[in-house]
Amino acid sequence: MSTLRSFLTTVTRFLKNNVFAPFTPQWWKSRVLSKIPFIGRGAKKQALPDTDAQTAPVAPQAPTVVRQYEEHPSTAYMELKYNFRDVGRMQAISETLGRDFLTAMPEGAWKSRLGQIAFLHRRIHEDITSTRMSDLIERAKSHQSNHPDDWDEWDTANLREMDTMHSHYKPVSPDLIEKRARMSYEGRRQHRDCLSAGDWPAAREYLTRVIDLNKQIAEAKCQACNTNSPYEALMDEYMPGIKLSDVESWFGTMEKRLSTLLPEILERQKQTEPPKDMHDFYPAKAQMWLNQAMLSAIGFDFQRGGLYETGHNPVEGGTPEDTRLVIKNVDIHNFMDSLKSALHEGGHGIYIQGLPRTTWRYQPVAQDMGAAVHESQALIIEMIMARTRAFYSYISPRVEGLFHGLQNPTLSADNMHKNKIWVQPTTQRKSADEVTYFLHVLHRFKLERDLINGKLKVADLPDAWNAGMRDLLGIEPDSVKDGCLQDVHWFVGKFGYFPSYAIGHMLAAQLYQTMRKDEGSDLFEHIAQGNFMPVTSWMREKIHKKGRLLQFDDLVTEATGKKLSPKPLIAHLESRYLKDNALISA
Amino acid sequence: MSTLRSFLTTVTRFLKNNVFAPFTPQWWKSRVLSKIPFIGRGAKKQALPDTDAQTAPVAPQAPTVVRQYEEHPSTAYMELKYNFRDVGRMQAISETLGRDFLTAMPEGAWKSRLGQIAFLHRRIHEDITSTRMSDLIERAKSHQSNHPDDWDEWDTANLREMDTMHSHYKPVSPDLIEKRARMSYEGRRQHRDCLSAGDWPAAREYLTRVIDLNKQIAEAKCQACNTNSPYEALMDEYMPGIKLSDVESWFGTMEKRLSTLLPEILERQKQTEPPKDMHDFYPAKAQMWLNQAMLSAIGFDFQRGGLYETGHNPVEGGTPEDTRLVIKNVDIHNFMDSLKSALHEGGHGIYIQGLPRTTWRYQPVAQDMGAAVHESQALIIEMIMARTRAFYSYISPRVEGLFHGLQNPTLSADNMHKNKIWVQPTTQRKSADEVTYFLHVLHRFKLERDLINGKLKVADLPDAWNAGMRDLLGIEPDSVKDGCLQDVHWFVGKFGYFPSYAIGHMLAAQLYQTMRKDEGSDLFEHIAQGNFMPVTSWMREKIHKKGRLLQFDDLVTEATGKKLSPKPLIAHLESRYLKDNALISA
Repeated sequence: MSTLRSFLTTVTRFLKNNVFAPFTPQWWKSRVLSKIPFIGRGAKKQALPDTDAQTAPVAPQAPTVVRQYEEHPSTAYMELKYNFRDVGRMQAISETLGRDFLTAMPEGAWKSRLGQIAFLHRRIHEDITSTRMSDLIERAKSHQSNHPDDWDEWDTANLREMDTMHSHYKPVSPDLIEKRARMSYEGRRQHRDCLSAGDWPAAREYLTRVIDLNKQIAEAKCQACNTNSPYEALMDEYMPGIKLSDVESWFGTMEKRLSTLLPEILERQKQTEPPKDMHDFYPAKAQMWLNQAMLSAIGFDFQRGGLYETGHNPVEGGTPEDTRLVIKNVDIHNFMDSLKSALHEGGHGIYIQGLPRTTWRYQPVAQDMGAAVHESQALIIEMIMARTRAFYSYISPRVEGLFHGLQNPTLSADNMHKNKIWVQPTTQRKSADEVTYFLHVLHRFKLERDLINGKLKVADLPDAWNAGMRDLLGIEPDSVKDGCLQDVHWFVGKFGYFPSYAIGHMLAAQLYQTMRKDEGSDLFEHIAQGNFMPVTSWMREKIHKKGRLLQFDDLVTEATGKKLSPKPLIAHLESRYLKDNALISA
Repeated sequence: MSTLRSFLTTVTRFLKNNVFAPFTPQWWKSRVLSKIPFIGRGAKKQALPDTDAQTAPVAPQAPTVVRQYEEHPSTAYMELKYNFRDVGRMQAISETLGRDFLTAMPEGAWKSRLGQIAFLHRRIHEDITSTRMSDLIERAKSHQSNHPDDWDEWDTANLREMDTMHSHYKPVSPDLIEKRARMSYEGRRQHRDCLSAGDWPAAREYLTRVIDLNKQIAEAKCQACNTNSPYEALMDEYMPGIKLSDVESWFGTMEKRLSTLLPEILERQKQTEPPKDMHDFYPAKAQMWLNQAMLSAIGFDFQRGGLYETGHNPVEGGTPEDTRLVIKNVDIHNFMDSLKSALHEGGHGIYIQGLPRTTWRYQPVAQDMGAAVHESQALIIEMIMARTRAFYSYISPRVEGLFHGLQNPTLSADNMHKNKIWVQPTTQRKSADEVTYFLHVLHRFKLERDLINGKLKVADLPDAWNAGMRDLLGIEPDSVKDGCLQDVHWFVGKFGYFPSYAIGHMLAAQLYQTMRKDEGSDLFEHIAQGNFMPVTSWMREKIHKKGRLLQFDDLVTEATGKKLSPKPLIAHLESRYLKDNALISA
């Protein structure tokens, strides 16, 4: 029966979606035969070809199957697909409201906008946790166990993600969700104001509220979702599939290696002339042109996105059709800073734009993999590619023209590259070099874990901050502005996010290692010519177009042949910063 | 009992909201005593003072009472207030999505954006028409008839508007609402494309779909809401409280008078030199600066709004905290055109910003009065004030400086003024003079009424258009671009909207007549000095801050002492265009 149903379903889908498709043998095999168990035996594991027609290597002329709307024998699952489409629409609307908040909204609208955003998130919560939704998920899961052949790997993953969203929202009350959504934007204003005034008492009062709220959420989830600690419950929202114990083990390895690697690098660096200071006057418009042009070059599609400035801190995100990236207002004395920011956000952007949009659009399986993978995509561009010598070979002559500085020695490829790979402990995470960056993240990770677990009181944060900086980097900030107020994350309630920068860096290094093997030595020649597509295409294939088809460990293993480990990052840092030719090559 | 309850309610409200308020005798009288029937006898008719603290003349130090959240003895009504707040939030979100669509959204996002907007309107429909909402409205109405003393005029009006919204949404299916919401933005793109290509076949096909949809909506509402015709049912959405028979009667009077007035004006005009042509080069940025500066001068608050350009047709609307006005990209050869557009939208804008925001915010009673009153606010600025000689006395020296044309005769106050009051039949409504403007509206009104009533087929529209133009204005467009494709309204499904331009013009003239009496002859001296606040303040008091407290006839009668009539507009046109000094004075 199940086989017959499966066959009939396949024929129906086929007639419905592909009636004009070319009947190539490959097409038959991949779209029809492989789905019929008694013919396509063994094909199940390798399963369906990717249905994202944009990049699918097989049957390029077949029309895109909009899997979001494709009929499925489980009526419960069909209804779930429609319901989650609407949840996805609300999330997309919330993204637009957020972009508008940062870039275009009149100042006087901020309070009512907070109310609108909070309301929308309450609605999302109500929709996802409704009894109807619980019932549908149970029915779909039961259909899946009774008729496994009706569920290909995408449908299976989609239902798994629906179930996860449902079970993660369920234990948290709509009130908490509403308050958190409000804080996620109110915090941007609070941070902006506290930071510019260096106002620790105001920050303390506000952070106390944020932390209380996050503790409540964390405790509710910790009990219901079986995580080992409230902090892990928060971390899990940003990095599903990564355990706190793994993070502690990876970070322990990193910290240990850096404790000797950093002094060694600094010692070695003493034998070299420091780079020439690049501060000068770089008109804001020209900087934004360069930033936009470079985003185009790395494959960002401006038909479906853009790059904007904001007076607030930037925010990741957007949707595949509307990926508006936001960087902080450019500093007219430092184009390298805005370029770095644009490339970082651009890495996020091409990930978002590469998600399986045309097929699965608003479905949970079409989401990104969370913060760790997201940061890996940003950091492989910003931290890794944009610190190669090849990258500055391409950039240097262009900026000489753009900023009217022919033969200006500060704009030489060597000097720009040296600026980027010069290691120098600093109090600011955002201007940290690639080697000490990890220590900034480690520092914040320890503090936020203790804030949530209650070991650290908010009132003691500035002292704890300074003590940690002394321990890890041997320097100390002059003020809270330069210390514990520098980041927006805690103000917007992002506790559990910071580790993703370091994990993203580790993953970026691991992906980079594999990509270099796959692409060969030509890679740097391409980059020096301004052709970044080999990098972007590799990532699209291995990461972007998979959405949430795989879980974290499987995604990393499929892409790199092994689970995530700190070794590739350590090897990368050793190679880039300790090899003899470190200061003039990749 | 009712008196006791009323007294207790009053004391509770008092303690809750005003515990720190200064206990001035005036304050006691207005906020407490007047609400106790056996003390404040007779005070009920003159009722509560306006609670909008921004402009309330009494008790300026009393805190603003946020009536939206104020406790009320009817628990059903309290729940309704919360529910309609959320409906209002969704409408506000939809406005933001719409602004973004026109001004900032990347082109590639348009399809998914249509889906989001349509979804949101479906949700609004579902919320308003839920059985829970029906039940609450019935319960609140029953509370109101049993305890009339608990219901002041604002609560009464608020419940009436809730009931109206509910009964107008109810007969229309959510599918139709969703489709219409989608069309309201899809139509902007369709119009832009059909107009630029002059593509009548594509327009015909699209308009057929729009008209079919509107007919279905009109028929559903006509039956359920007891209007006299499907067209009237549509008209009622834009102009609640105005009957088709009234419109036909007013328009008949206007048409009759214009049939002799227009030739007389044209004949008289022959004795004068025509104005000097003002086409020249006016940089776009300078134009936008002027437009924004003039909006500030008329009292538009840029803290809660802004003025933007779009490649699409502009759209009215926004919310009191976020009134982003949109005009079509400026024509660098014609600053008078963009100024006119900005002033028109500015009139809409100050109306929206003047609604009872701090007290009633998202409640139905805080809405504007619909299109006729809205257009009156736009047209009194654009058509009436910005055609006075005094206005150009103020503008002239400033634009001489702005556009680098000292003593440029085309920029003289006389020449600018003459350009504005020169009467010249034209095929384009948007560039029509103040006298022939009515005929353009009349023309469209007749056509759209027949399109909805089925007397006119879409295929026959271009011929009917041209015939009407010949009849009414004695001229004929060269092409559909210049004819029936010129307006966006029908493409976005706005059938029943056009009459509001002429009714708004009539109302503007009637308000202007009263305002001139109230303000005296100083008014034009103020305007010549760039002080437009007497006009804006008068409108705020008489129109803006009332929201939907009154119904149309009552609002007009309270403001002007009589019901709406075409006489003041006719008198205004006669005075401005026939008096001896017509071409050099107001």
